[in-house]
Order: sequence, then C-alpha cells, then structure tokens
Amino acid sequence: MKPNFSLRLRVFSLNCWGIPYLSKHRADRVKRLGDFLNMESFDLALLQEVWSEQDFQYLRQKLSPTYPAAHYFRSGIIGSGLCVFSKHSIQEITQHIYTLNGYPYMIYHGDWFCGKAVGLLVLHLSGLVLNAYVTHLHAEYNRQKDIYLAHRVAQAWELAQFIHHTSKKADVVLLCGDLNLHPKDLGCRLLKEWTGLHDAYLETRDFKGSEEGCTMVPENCYVSRQELEPFPLGIRIDYVLYKAVSRFYISCKTLKTTIGRDPHSGTPLSDHEALMATLCVRHSPPQQDASPTHGAAERSLLISVLREAWTELDLGMSQAHWWATFAGYVTGVGLLLLVLVCALVAGGGVREIAIMLWAPTVGLVLGAGAVYLFHMQEAKGLCRARAELHHVLGRARDAQDLGPESQPVPLLGQQEGDRAEEQ
Amino acid sequence: MKPNFSLRLRVFSLNCWGIPYLSKHRADRVKRLGDFLNMESFDLALLQEVWSEQDFQYLRQKLSPTYPAAHYFRSGIIGSGLCVFSKHSIQEITQHIYTLNGYPYMIYHGDWFCGKAVGLLVLHLSGLVLNAYVTHLHAEYNRQKDIYLAHRVAQAWELAQFIHHTSKKADVVLLCGDLNLHPKDLGCRLLKEWTGLHDAYLETRDFKGSEEGCTMVPENCYVSRQELEPFPLGIRIDYVLYKAVSRFYISCKTLKTTIGRDPHSGTPLSDHEALMATLCVRHSPPQQDASPTHGAAERSLLISVLREAWTELDLGMSQAHWWATFAGYVTGVGLLLLVLVCALVAGGGVREIAIMLWAPTVGLVLGAGAVYLFHMQEAKGLCRARAELHHVLGRARDAQDLGPESQPVPLLGQQEGDRAEEQ
Repeated sequence: MKPNFSLRLRVFSLNCWGIPYLSKHRADRVKRLGDFLNMESFDLALLQEVWSEQDFQYLRQKLSPTYPAAHYFRSGIIGSGLCVFSKHSIQEITQHIYTLNGYPYMIYHGDWFCGKAVGLLVLHLSGLVLNAYVTHLHAEYNRQKDIYLAHRVAQAWELAQFIHHTSKKADVVLLCGDLNLHPKDLGCRLLKEWTGLHDAYLETRDFKGSEEGCTMVPENCYVSRQELEPFPLGIRIDYVLYKAVSRFYISCKTLKTTIGRDPHSGTPLSDHEALMATLCVRHSPPQQDASPTHGAAERSLLISVLREAWTELDLGMSQAHWWATFAGYVTGVGLLLLVLVCALVAGGGVREIAIMLWAPTVGLVLGAGAVYLFHMQEAKGLCRARAELHHVLGRARDAQDLGPESQPVPLLGQQEGDRAEEQ
Repeated sequence: MKPNFSLRLRVFSLNCWGIPYLSKHRADRVKRLGDFLNMESFDLALLQEVWSEQDFQYLRQKLSPTYPAAHYFRSGIIGSGLCVFSKHSIQEITQHIYTLNGYPYMIYHGDWFCGKAVGLLVLHLSGLVLNAYVTHLHAEYNRQKDIYLAHRVAQAWELAQFIHHTSKKADVVLLCGDLNLHPKDLGCRLLKEWTGLHDAYLETRDFKGSEEGCTMVPENCYVSRQELEPFPLGIRIDYVLYKAVSRFYISCKTLKTTIGRDPHSGTPLSDHEALMATLCVRHSPPQQDASPTHGAAERSLLISVLREAWTELDLGMSQAHWWATFAGYVTGVGLLLLVLVCALVAGGGVREIAIMLWAPTVGLVLGAGAVYLFHMQEAKGLCRARAELHHVLGRARDAQDLGPESQPVPLLGQQEGDRAEEQ
C-alpha cells in the first residue's frame, strides 16, 4: 500500500419503513429508493426495515448493475429487516441476533417477532480491511415509561461486544443503522465508549440536512407529529459511526440527510431520514498521541457509563425476576385449580361447571407457565450482559488504580489489563 | 517475546452430567471433581453440563486458590451449562447463543430449554493471545433417524463462524467441549475444514486413555450400554481442538482421557470421560510451506464438505417449511371451527356442546399458531446458515477456478478471494 494512500467511501443508510400492508406507499417508495441508489452509486447502501424479502429481491435485481454484491440478513420469525448493497465484492458475511428483544405478548409492538440483529460484512478495498456493520435496535414506544430500556441497553452492549470481538483485525470499522437511541441515551454512550466509534454528525465539518442532524423530523408527512411533540426539531436516532484501527486515519468529509422529503420529488423515501456520508481513509495518520490525562479521562467516562448500564441491567433483572415469580405463583394456583376441577369431575356434584372450567384452567397453567419460562430466560440474558459488563468494569477500575502513567488508553480498541472475573 | 519462547498449557475438559435431581451422585461427583482439579492445577478447566449455578458457585469457592478466575455462561431458560476455571486472569469474555437448538415441544429432550452456546475467553499468556472456546452442541438421540441433524449442522457452522470472526488477532485458538458429533460426522468435518482446527487425539504422539480416544465408554457405570450397543468401544464426541495463527506453532504433547472411572477412586466423575491435554506453543515454528497441491487439496475438501452441509441445511429447511405449512393449515381449520362454535353459541341449538368446544378450539388455534411461528423462525435460521455457507462456497469455487498457483491456502485462517453474495 502506498504511503500516500487515500480512500473515499460513500455510504448510504436508511430505515426504509417497509412493513407489508401497513407502511404507506411502500411499493412506490422502494421503487424510488432503487432509482436514487442507482443514480448516486454509493460504495455501500445499508438498509433497515426492509421487512419483505420480495422488496429486497426487487432492489437486488434493480441495483445489480451498480451494486453487484448484496445480502439479506434473515432472523427471527419475520426477519431482521436488514440488508446491504455493495459496489465492491463482499469477502465475508455473518450476523448476531440479539438475545433480548422485547416480549412476545406485546404483539402490537411486534419487535420480538422480528429477530433484531446486527449484520457484518467484511470488504477488502485497495488492501484495506473494512468491517461494515448494520443494525436496528428495539424501538422506543414510550420515553417516559420505557419498559424496553433494559433490553435496549443489553442490545447496545451485545452490539458493542460483537463489534469489539469481530473487528480486531479490521483497519476501518463502520456502523450504520437505526439505534432507536438519542445521542445522549445510555445505550448510545455505552456503545461509543466501549467501541471507540465516532459519530459522523459530530465529527464532520460539512453537514447539510435537517436541523441538529435529526433523522425523524416533523416535516416528514409519514411521521406522527403527536409522537414528536416533545421534540419540536425532531429526534436523531439513526447514525453513521466509524473508527480506524491500526495504521489508518478516518474522517467524515461530508454528511447529508434528507429533510422530510425525497431528494428529488416531494414525497419522502421513508418515515426516517436517509444519511449519506463521504468518509475519507488515509494512511500514515496525523496520530494524536493520547496524553495520560486524556487516557484517564476516557477511562473515567467508560467506568461511569458502565456503572450506569450495570444499574439499569440490574433493575431490569429485578423486574424480570418479579414477573417470573408472579407467573410462577399463577401457574401454581392454576395447577391447584386443575386438581380441584379434576376432583369435582371425578366426584360428580357440579360436574357441568367443572368440565367447563377445565379448559380455561389448563389454558391458565400453560399461559402462565410460558410467561414464567420467558421471564426466566429474560433474567438469564440480562444477567449474562451484567456479568460481562461487570468484568470490563473491574478491569477498567484496576487500570485506573494502576494510575494514568502505566496504561494510557487501555480500554479502547486494544485491550490490556488484568483482572479475574468472579461473578 | 524471546525467539526461543515456549509455553506449556495444561487443559482439562469434561461434560460433567450435572442435571439437578436427575444425574446420579451429582454432589459427590462435583466434590471429587473439585478435589481433582485442585490437585492437578491445570491452566484451564473448561466444563460443560454444569446446569446448576449452585454447583458452579461451589466449585468457584473450592477452586479459587488454584484457579482465581472463573466464569459461568448464562443463557436460555436453564442456562448453557458451560463454565470455566482459569489459573490465569481472563482478559475478555463473551458468548454466542446458537440460533437453532431443537424444539420446545420436545420437552423430554430438553435441549431447547438450555440455550446451548459457545463461550469465549481471551487470555494473555506471556505476551501470547489465547482465544479459548468452550461449547456443547445439541445431543444426538437417534443416530438412525436424527431429527436434529440440520440443527446440529447449523450449530457447527455458527460455531465455526464465531471462531473464525472472533479469533483473527489471536495467536492460539483452543476449542474444548462436547460436540455431540462423531469424528467423521458432517458437523465435525465442517467445523475443522472451515476453522483449520486440529484434533488433539489425532495429532498427539502420546495418548493414554480409552480405546480410540472414546469419551463415552461402556465401562462407565453411568452410561446406558443399550445406547452404546452399535459401538462396542464407545463413541468419541468430546474434543480438544486447537490451532496456532500467525507466528506460532502449537502441538499436543500428551493427551489423556479417564477410562470409565475416577482417576483415583472407582466411581467415574461423569457419564462422559474427561480430556486432559498438554499443549506446547512455540515461537518461530518449523513452518511447513503449503505446496500449491496441498492448498488445492484442502480447498477441494472444504468445497465438498460445504456442499454436503448446504444439502443438509436445505433438507432441514424443506422440513421446517412443511411443518410451518401444516401448522398454518391447522390454525386455519381451528379458526374456522372457532367461527362455527361462536355461531352455534349465538344461534342457540346445541349451545352446551358449543360452549364445551370453545376452549379446546381456542387452544388448537393458539397451539398450532405457536408451532407455525416456531417453524417459520426455524426456516429463517436454517436459511441464514445456508446463505452464509453459500457465500463461502462460491468464494472457494472461485479460488479453485483461479487455479492452485494463484492462492495456495486462501480459505483457512486468512481469507482472500473475491465473490459477491447474491442469495
């Protein structure tokens, strides 16, 4: 690779709002998205909420001359909704499905049925290894009383861990997607602190688009204005995040968003705004040697966010245990009722009523049993994330105790330290 | 690191058969296992089927002076059963839960409730990065008519992919566990061909233990002789697999197994035999430069095993689709019945019978609906594995078409090649 190596990477990311039968003007929007992507000829287009595989196949066919490589990430019952189109050939593909993703009985929210995931593509571009991730986290339906907060924190942690463990030999890491997290939300900070990823919107000097980089704006005709009432400018929940590892330096030259309408005609491409970033990767970076104070500050930030996440997961675990216990008791009561009903049937007496009660009682036992099992599994999942987090927290604290001189930035990118997990 | 660097690694692996209330002499066996591990002082003890967290906590306490680092991998409803004890501090921990793991309605097999997984520990030993993996795949209950074959192949693929993507910066990779796969089974070959891992039993020159390295032997009093009838010597389903990446060379100096009894007293530690390996990692290896012919042969083997796995996953997908369709029809019939019953209730006539039929009909709709959703998700999981496999297969074929001279061993360890995924 030449010492004056420079690579320009044009990236497109959009939550396409492609729910069959429910999303308005879906076919038309998918068609226009295809036309736009063909015209713009990005290096990578990372899409979310392409729930229908037919839509993906339609786009694949339409885009194949411009984007010869494509992949649809299948998971859950409905799918992950994630897919990618690439101008460059894809070297490797894998995905990780989040352990926790809402509740099956919240049918009207539907996230549980989707199998939310993170997809990974490895690309080799002019000798540079690029790990590109695309993801979509659990939606936030009520910011004041968010029952999915612990799940979203656990997802952000799993996402950060997946990136951390799979990108160790990558030169450049890119993450695009709908995180369903505001920039200062716990999950977003956790992800950024643990992976060291930078936010294109905050880093670029050339931004054009919606105010404050919002990706759901009230000007978009598909957005419910009522839901956005507390945020007059909109919300920023879709991101382009990146970092360069090893011998490279990456910067965001330009970042654009759509502004509530199609770049060409009036109707928007989705209820979310699209992100379009031009990234520049260079060799022999103007390396900023992290000063010991800088390292200590970063470590301190990481420790603080890890602590916060630990508390949130702990709260989530208590709730999961509470529900499991409650469902356990209901199952027990149901079983007692069942015995009683069977005894009544056998003994005669109020036989008709007993027979009528038999089926609902069986239903109660099975239903409550299923809820019990689900929340047991939820508690295990949260406990797993908490234990991993606890391990990292312990090592970060140990590094802090050793003083700033010993290890400048030991917890971002290349991990050093020494501590035994004793969870 | 010195050029004459050499590291000896003593590793212990055992499926502990620790099912609360069901496994015989569990408490006594766990106690004796603790004593044995303390006495032998291995570098790493990787255990499977420690289903009770109390057993893990007991061992942790007992082993903490010898093995200061420990971790229990939580997942699913019951857990993964995996845990690890290490003499050296653990730098990083993560895990991957297999997407497919049997059927929830096969309650008496129970695998679905366990959340089978692979756990990863990153250790830094004298400057060497060791990725140690521990796993336990879905059990094989009927070798002649194995309804879980596609799931086990998908698990082997996910395991191989997880190792492949998370070990890129590791110097040494170690995998221990109960794969529930015979050495020539498709899953085992797929795992070895895709990751490049070597089998300690086949590699070592100093093996002591059961005949043919079997890890379930008829001499073990906890093993059902009837189940082992087709295999008079026993079966080999537990493994120590390893490879060295980059600048290192690894070999297995000695491998021992228990032989149906405790190393000291008469009663065995488990229904499986324990594996004890002494591995030696050296710097500046006597590198065997892979000849082009050797590379081509490896590629050809990989292509053949990928094809076989693809066919198996495809068969599994067809079956999953068949069950989903069947359950879909049953749900439809149930819904029709429900409408009929409601009409009867509303219209009078055979009201009593209609009321009695109402609950079972609702049960039928809900039950069949759940089966439908489960098999839809199964089909998605198998389809995902098949698509990833197809991508690798395409690249392997492309590399083969380019001829042996161009890329000697492009598909093991460091991946090169060029092909677009068009699934």
